[in-house]
Amino acid sequence: MDFTLALSCPDRPGIVAAVSAALLACGADIADAQQYGDRETGAFFMRVAFRATGPEAELRAALAETAEAFALSYTLRDDHPRRVLILASRFDHCLADLLYRWRIGELWMDIAGVISNHAIETYANLDLRDVPFHHLPVTKDTKAQQEARVLEIVAETGTDLVVLARYMQVLSDDMSRALEGRCINIHHSFLPGFKGAKPYHQAHARGVKLIGATAHYVTADLDEGPIIEQDVARADHSKTVEDLTAMGRDTESQVLARAVKWHSEHRVLLNGHKTVIFK
Amino acid sequence: MDFTLALSCPDRPGIVAAVSAALLACGADIADAQQYGDRETGAFFMRVAFRATGPEAELRAALAETAEAFALSYTLRDDHPRRVLILASRFDHCLADLLYRWRIGELWMDIAGVISNHAIETYANLDLRDVPFHHLPVTKDTKAQQEARVLEIVAETGTDLVVLARYMQVLSDDMSRALEGRCINIHHSFLPGFKGAKPYHQAHARGVKLIGATAHYVTADLDEGPIIEQDVARADHSKTVEDLTAMGRDTESQVLARAVKWHSEHRVLLNGHKTVIFK
Amino acid sequence: MDFTLALSCPDRPGIVAAVSAALLACGADIADAQQYGDRETGAFFMRVAFRATGPEAELRAALAETAEAFALSYTLRDDHPRRVLILASRFDHCLADLLYRWRIGELWMDIAGVISNHAIETYANLDLRDVPFHHLPVTKDTKAQQEARVLEIVAETGTDLVVLARYMQVLSDDMSRALEGRCINIHHSFLPGFKGAKPYHQAHARGVKLIGATAHYVTADLDEGPIIEQDVARADHSKTVEDLTAMGRDTESQVLARAVKWHSEHRVLLNGHKTVIFK
Amino acid sequence: MDFTLALSCPDRPGIVAAVSAALLACGADIADAQQYGDRETGAFFMRVAFRATGPEAELRAALAETAEAFALSYTLRDDHPRRVLILASRFDHCLADLLYRWRIGELWMDIAGVISNHAIETYANLDLRDVPFHHLPVTKDTKAQQEARVLEIVAETGTDLVVLARYMQVLSDDMSRALEGRCINIHHSFLPGFKGAKPYHQAHARGVKLIGATAHYVTADLDEGPIIEQDVARADHSKTVEDLTAMGRDTESQVLARAVKWHSEHRVLLNGHKTVIFK
Repeated sequence: MDFTLALSCPDRPGIVAAVSAALLACGADIADAQQYGDRETGAFFMRVAFRATGPEAELRAALAETAEAFALSYTLRDDHPRRVLILASRFDHCLADLLYRWRIGELWMDIAGVISNHAIETYANLDLRDVPFHHLPVTKDTKAQQEARVLEIVAETGTDLVVLARYMQVLSDDMSRALEGRCINIHHSFLPGFKGAKPYHQAHARGVKLIGATAHYVTADLDEGPIIEQDVARADHSKTVEDLTAMGRDTESQVLARAVKWHSEHRVLLNGHKTVIFK
Repeated sequence: MDFTLALSCPDRPGIVAAVSAALLACGADIADAQQYGDRETGAFFMRVAFRATGPEAELRAALAETAEAFALSYTLRDDHPRRVLILASRFDHCLADLLYRWRIGELWMDIAGVISNHAIETYANLDLRDVPFHHLPVTKDTKAQQEARVLEIVAETGTDLVVLARYMQVLSDDMSRALEGRCINIHHSFLPGFKGAKPYHQAHARGVKLIGATAHYVTADLDEGPIIEQDVARADHSKTVEDLTAMGRDTESQVLARAVKWHSEHRVLLNGHKTVIFK
Repeated sequence: MDFTLALSCPDRPGIVAAVSAALLACGADIADAQQYGDRETGAFFMRVAFRATGPEAELRAALAETAEAFALSYTLRDDHPRRVLILASRFDHCLADLLYRWRIGELWMDIAGVISNHAIETYANLDLRDVPFHHLPVTKDTKAQQEARVLEIVAETGTDLVVLARYMQVLSDDMSRALEGRCINIHHSFLPGFKGAKPYHQAHARGVKLIGATAHYVTADLDEGPIIEQDVARADHSKTVEDLTAMGRDTESQVLARAVKWHSEHRVLLNGHKTVIFK
Repeated sequence: MDFTLALSCPDRPGIVAAVSAALLACGADIADAQQYGDRETGAFFMRVAFRATGPEAELRAALAETAEAFALSYTLRDDHPRRVLILASRFDHCLADLLYRWRIGELWMDIAGVISNHAIETYANLDLRDVPFHHLPVTKDTKAQQEARVLEIVAETGTDLVVLARYMQVLSDDMSRALEGRCINIHHSFLPGFKGAKPYHQAHARGVKLIGATAHYVTADLDEGPIIEQDVARADHSKTVEDLTAMGRDTESQVLARAVKWHSEHRVLLNGHKTVIFK
């Protein structure tokens, strides 16, 4: 069976030797591995994709022992696809893109469901036929309840990852904390950055030549969680606000899809407020 | 003789017809032209590169007449290279890049001189042998005098364009106004943006995946002048502050060179706080 | 009403003046225009987007007169969306992408229909509910008939543009000629190029670092028609043939969508074997 | 002292465990490591950057032992800069770029010298004052002698890497073999590719929208050695052959600089006819 091990720990000599010895003892054959020691923070990161021939229990026991010796924080996952729950609002370009990539097998995931604060009729352009859909409207007064219901669905479906696919609701601090490290958001990004509403209008008014997007983990600090991926597209003076918005849709979809893909393949490790990405 | 006409005016029917008729009457053969009407601001922009067969005085008279009829704001330039004055400080990567591109004929300009607040010995890595060099140190107390001297050199040398090639001095508001529309600055740009000192340190701490640069006209509003060009390069977690800084050097040099090239070829027109770029 | 005029002709003084005077006489207000004179071939190109206030018949008469005087080859189109017929085979990523962009209004077109040599069941992942679908299987023996039927559908539906969206059939020379200038194909492109079958396998074997795609007009000379757009994505050593193929899907979809968009907006003019693109 | 170990071998369980144990036994602290197993070829690749505290002799002995056990092909290098010999011809943009990056410390290398088949006067735009320069003209008849002299200089100067910086001479098969794995060439690349002379003229005639460059190791098979890096820049219809050539200069310089940097940091491992690049 194929497994992926992702770990971080305080850096010290012997980690790679110990981990690889433990894997070898359980008959593991390494396919792909990467290590990175951050000289500044003194943290060490490792990802190992391997094929195990021995019993899984033995493997887990050996890892647990090594983890204790080296203070490893780690996850070991088999190759079952991740269960992904997508939260969407009115704009559905990211949702459409994720569904298509999932259907053609490009993303290693199962769709645990789609939750929207809008009714299913909003998504007339999409084919949701085999996807559990939950309409969970939200107002200022019902926000706590709605978020509680989202977390219930997360629990009931065994969701591994929550994707905010242009979900236009700010998660509460409690909700953000409850989903820490397993909730990815996408938002537009510009050089320079803009605060406040209608960012594409602001970008247009400023005459920017690049339109960007950033995918990041959600933290209580809005739009400031660890960055997973960023990209840009080129604009020029003839672009209207609508054009910029259309370009933004493409960039957002692609950047989010890459972040979801890497997370699903356990390529993203947290390094304090930053990420280590083993592509 | 080859000329370039660049104009803007309030949009109304007949501008292209009138300007092209005026050019035709003077025996002009159009090589390349572009027009753009900004529906939002109601401004119209036009750039025409043409070869004139008739006398220049006639051409100028015909244009002046059209200009009055249509409230044109315009410049007509022959194909003599622009005279460019470069201001530099300790970091010389942009200066080095501009000098090399100038020497191989890639930039349509003459170097009117290099001004630095550092001594010529700072540039031991560069070949300045045939370039007038001015060492103009500056302190808080001498800033007004130093800027006055820069403006004198601008006047004496017939400088068309001042390039701040990583010139680490903030121009005074008076100086910025004196050089309005003919002074280009380059600075780093990130998604999200960072305020304050040591931007590459901040970018590193934030774990950004893209390092960018913006070339813009200098206005009294620091780093907020009309944007001419932007670009980015891709970073990853293994990049140190030094790596990001090195990547920034490349991006800054290339973005600045493009902005200088387009300005020198009269491809950049101001549209309020934005630019129209006829590439 | 809004119109777009696209023209080319032998270069000589007075074209812009004459065309803009003709437009002005019919009460046209120019929104966006571009001209380009190719010094090498002596051809002149012009695109004008304008709003007409007078009667269309007058406009057409005025243009016909100018066309004769200057040997213009031109098209004048109003702002009705182009009718686009999409030909697809087994791989449906380009088809899926075009349909989504069309549904959200990003592409200025109507879908005249989808033709495939595969049955509609092949496209279970797509929502074709409101799109006329034609299953036209093809064998070596029936190719002539099948192509004749495609051309009939083109005629019956008033199709302006045929898009080969990963249509894995080589058009006959006659068919190519019949659709000249109104049929766009997309194909993979690499540096260096590869001839023959299984290009992604070849690219993988060669260890290329970039995966590209080219959209071009179809001519009798296979894969060698005038290039409209190209782009690349970055690969590395860890990419399998499947990964490269997935990257290729994204690049192909985006490049094809841009080519279709520009063609639909009459931004693409033929310059011999090359294209002039007024973005 | 800091070391970099780069190795490849037939894949089998236990390599990482054995190598990291051997390093640990010699007091090595791993800073950065990457492994990659190519499932198709059955080859395994590893790069380890580490700080050694014990004696170097012990380290080398431990590695030799592991190498025998696992049939490792490996190199162990300390952190002295690589010695790089640059071969140039008339076009000096790549040479200029490498010299500047070397002077500002961006490339971890010493310049062992510059060899050209042109006289030093050709490089009036460059500052070669502290660089050993060898003028080695070459004709069909003297090619064997000239190449022999180049190889002598390689040997005398302890050159680690030979860079063909737009060196317009085809190396003989013998010369190519003598420098196998330690000689990098840069050449233009296009989609589609072009054979024969004047490639930028061909690219212009074909109307390509992208201009690219490829850096690769030199093998007896001209321009077909293992690819290290590729990149492209965007062109449009208004670009002349001269413009395309200027764009090509920039792309070539950047792509070559990246290849030289990665090679100097031992990030490039050969995988048959391909490369594994541990960035």
